[in-house]
Amino acid sequence: MSVLTSTMHEIRKNPALWFLLFVPVVFVYQSINPAAHTVLFLLSVAAIVPLAMTLSRATESVAARTGDMIGGLLNATLGNLTELVIALAALRAGQIVLVKATIAGAIFTNTLFMLGASFLLGGLKNHVQEFNKASARFQTVLMFIASVALVVPSVVAGSGVAGSDAMVADLSVAIAVILLLTYGLGLLFSLKTHKSIFTSRDEGKEHVDEPAWPLSVALPVLAIVTVFIALVSEIFVESVQEASLQLGMSAAFVGFVIVALVGAAAEMTTSFSAARKDRLDLSVSIAIGSASQIALFVAPVIVLLSYVIAPAPTDLVFWPGAVMMVMIATITATMVTSSGRSAWFVGVTLLAVYLIFASALYLIPPRVG
Amino acid sequence: MSVLTSTMHEIRKNPALWFLLFVPVVFVYQSINPAAHTVLFLLSVAAIVPLAMTLSRATESVAARTGDMIGGLLNATLGNLTELVIALAALRAGQIVLVKATIAGAIFTNTLFMLGASFLLGGLKNHVQEFNKASARFQTVLMFIASVALVVPSVVAGSGVAGSDAMVADLSVAIAVILLLTYGLGLLFSLKTHKSIFTSRDEGKEHVDEPAWPLSVALPVLAIVTVFIALVSEIFVESVQEASLQLGMSAAFVGFVIVALVGAAAEMTTSFSAARKDRLDLSVSIAIGSASQIALFVAPVIVLLSYVIAPAPTDLVFWPGAVMMVMIATITATMVTSSGRSAWFVGVTLLAVYLIFASALYLIPPRVG
Amino acid sequence: MSVLTSTMHEIRKNPALWFLLFVPVVFVYQSINPAAHTVLFLLSVAAIVPLAMTLSRATESVAARTGDMIGGLLNATLGNLTELVIALAALRAGQIVLVKATIAGAIFTNTLFMLGASFLLGGLKNHVQEFNKASARFQTVLMFIASVALVVPSVVAGSGVAGSDAMVADLSVAIAVILLLTYGLGLLFSLKTHKSIFTSRDEGKEHVDEPAWPLSVALPVLAIVTVFIALVSEIFVESVQEASLQLGMSAAFVGFVIVALVGAAAEMTTSFSAARKDRLDLSVSIAIGSASQIALFVAPVIVLLSYVIAPAPTDLVFWPGAVMMVMIATITATMVTSSGRSAWFVGVTLLAVYLIFASALYLIPPRVG
Repeated sequence: MSVLTSTMHEIRKNPALWFLLFVPVVFVYQSINPAAHTVLFLLSVAAIVPLAMTLSRATESVAARTGDMIGGLLNATLGNLTELVIALAALRAGQIVLVKATIAGAIFTNTLFMLGASFLLGGLKNHVQEFNKASARFQTVLMFIASVALVVPSVVAGSGVAGSDAMVADLSVAIAVILLLTYGLGLLFSLKTHKSIFTSRDEGKEHVDEPAWPLSVALPVLAIVTVFIALVSEIFVESVQEASLQLGMSAAFVGFVIVALVGAAAEMTTSFSAARKDRLDLSVSIAIGSASQIALFVAPVIVLLSYVIAPAPTDLVFWPGAVMMVMIATITATMVTSSGRSAWFVGVTLLAVYLIFASALYLIPPRVG
Repeated sequence: MSVLTSTMHEIRKNPALWFLLFVPVVFVYQSINPAAHTVLFLLSVAAIVPLAMTLSRATESVAARTGDMIGGLLNATLGNLTELVIALAALRAGQIVLVKATIAGAIFTNTLFMLGASFLLGGLKNHVQEFNKASARFQTVLMFIASVALVVPSVVAGSGVAGSDAMVADLSVAIAVILLLTYGLGLLFSLKTHKSIFTSRDEGKEHVDEPAWPLSVALPVLAIVTVFIALVSEIFVESVQEASLQLGMSAAFVGFVIVALVGAAAEMTTSFSAARKDRLDLSVSIAIGSASQIALFVAPVIVLLSYVIAPAPTDLVFWPGAVMMVMIATITATMVTSSGRSAWFVGVTLLAVYLIFASALYLIPPRVG
Repeated sequence: MSVLTSTMHEIRKNPALWFLLFVPVVFVYQSINPAAHTVLFLLSVAAIVPLAMTLSRATESVAARTGDMIGGLLNATLGNLTELVIALAALRAGQIVLVKATIAGAIFTNTLFMLGASFLLGGLKNHVQEFNKASARFQTVLMFIASVALVVPSVVAGSGVAGSDAMVADLSVAIAVILLLTYGLGLLFSLKTHKSIFTSRDEGKEHVDEPAWPLSVALPVLAIVTVFIALVSEIFVESVQEASLQLGMSAAFVGFVIVALVGAAAEMTTSFSAARKDRLDLSVSIAIGSASQIALFVAPVIVLLSYVIAPAPTDLVFWPGAVMMVMIATITATMVTSSGRSAWFVGVTLLAVYLIFASALYLIPPRVG
């Protein structure tokens, strides 16, 4: 089975992949009309969604073909490649606000929207659902560490000590290293020393995973699609600022809500479908797992890479509203997952908190930068 | 049994109802001496307490006579009618600080003082008490959503973006709608789709409920008493500002502590008595249930009605101390109810947190408005 | 067995006690060279550690010889005598920042570092460890009350009402009384009325306690060592400010990290050794118990004593970063102990949060005073 035929096969099965047609369209349109920011913004969004889905499929295939341990590592590092690539494009363009909004927005969207909608959709079909609460606790504790890591430099930066900019940069690097170490030890814990704690209760239930591609297909797809996402992300990042102005949305709203929804589209499809099939362990680990991965892996990588590829280094200082959102998202996820049981109203709870924040972002653009 | 004879019967059984005599007294006194604010304040407090108790008795009677579903709905909407009527009187008089202190104070008093005293009184009589923790979790999650709803506009308003007043008003309306929707869905969940989760463990224990009045008594009493509370509330609201000055208390302290204790007197009697009879499910649902009802039903109704009946619309912006109190009250309630077990020291915990805040309010009047 | 021979016996068994030799050294050195602050600082640290260990051993011996109830009370009041004596020395010297850093630092170090290292060390030897979660919950709830007690005056003081200094002082005294009352009632609860809840699951496991000294040895040692700690603390407090300048550390870092580690050295030895022997109940109660004791007993005693012995009364206002640290330390401890189970990664979690704060304190000295 060649890359081409298997891609064709996938497109027939998943109509969303027809949107891959937007990938050539966005490149052609940009060469014709490079100043049509709003159109380019919409086209690049339409192109990134199917690319992210394909990327996600390829990552999972490679993971499935390489055994539990390496597969787990791959999923843990490449699982949010889309968000990483978008954030890197924004970083190279020097759009720090967009970088941070993308990171905070991904944490916030995955924890509240993706998890909430999964609980709601699953709960509408199943009266009460159970999931592995030890696994959920592990992910929410990781998110909590990340929240602390965001709140500390932000509070310190807000205290206004003279000359604190350089200090905050040093502190951000130190915290980035602590986060990466914690993430690495967390992988060791969950994939090796205490693997059994994370065993799903879903064994025997209907599976949602599609058959994995062979490595000969998955690896080239992974490489090619990543390049395309990087290319489209550049158009996206260039156009987003002008487009958001014309559409009457703030850069923070775009980062928090639009980019986050676009970047997580692939995971959402899987998470929602698993919830409806009562495989809630999968939903919970995708939703909170993505959030903690972005917080403990993508965010510190961005901070460290900013010393290499960005016009200026970036730090872990977020505006107070963003820190509050991440903190409250973490507390909400901790509260609703602590019992290991779910019903539809738990989803409503998470979505209500999401809507309150989304309204605030939409109606009152934060002053940042 | 006519309204009059059954009222007489109640008064004989419940000596607190002798205080109903203060209702005519307060009206007579006001017509004689409308400027004696402190006396009028004290008289109106003395009149509201027995009125609130009678109102509560009438509401429960109507609820008991109309079946589980409608009864639950009635309790859920009229259960805090006293607080609603007082807040509306303050709203019409343009006393926004008092309105907000009443709302925040009711949440704070019910969660910390009423729940704490119930746990303490129950625990002094029973070594260890158990209660339905799923039900407590539901109520504390609702309160948590309300805390988020208060913290977001307050943080946003504090960020000082130019022209943010109109934005904050819009945001408050949006959040009020989200809260009411969540409250409605919560009723659907607890009264209909997942009713069984909320089943009390108290079945078979000694009952505290007095026999319900027939509808022919309860409905007129409900109507008449509401009117009287509204009339007395107006005298109360007119006199409170002058009286608090003369008594050396801030408007915030009066709203947070005095009004809240007055408004909740009826529920407290029931909650304490249930706790001593080891019917802790009832105590917990009255205490935290009242708090979440005020947060998710009374508060948004006040915001929306303020566009119709107030001199100026009000919003959901509270001063930072009030937001902190509501947030900490919610976290405290969540912590102490998560195990579903209680002993006397749990009550001490809640009362200690209550006393710390009450001391702060008494000793250091917040700057508001 | 005389005091002298039993001391010799101890020293032979516990090599750390050789450091007792630093006690005479520090006094001699100070009389020779009273301006050598850095050397005196290091010498006094080296002298306090073995003194604290001996004090801890004497307190436990007295407790073991006087029965459960009085023994429990003694441990609860003298268990953190070292921290109390150091804080009193700093108080008499008018070094309020150091007093507060010592208190906040002890809470923070015991909760995050001592507990984290115990979980990590215990977890490296035992796959999964269990502990009495009711007991852990009791201690974390006490810490939560203390966090609220710290956050309220600090927020109030930060609101900048005119003339609020006297008000904050009044409030601090009121809260100190509330904390002491709560602490006393907590002892009544845990040592008398609900003793059985706190029963350890460790019965039958290998014991770590060394045999208790007879009272004829323990009481004189207790008295003499306390006097020595007081004397060495004075040298320590005098030298710390100059020394921290020369070593390039802020007073806050010294108080938070160095003093806290020094003061807790004795408890740490016991806690770590218990964790490795799978007696996690002991570790948890030492670590969180010390933290709650400092918060609810040492801190209010300091505030009340400051009216008697200090140049100026002190209050409960901490700088925002310190309040945040205590609050987050409490939340972290609550999260990780709620399940009653532990594995090595739980220790990593606590240590990661500790390292984030320690980095912030080291890199960015807070502006205080």
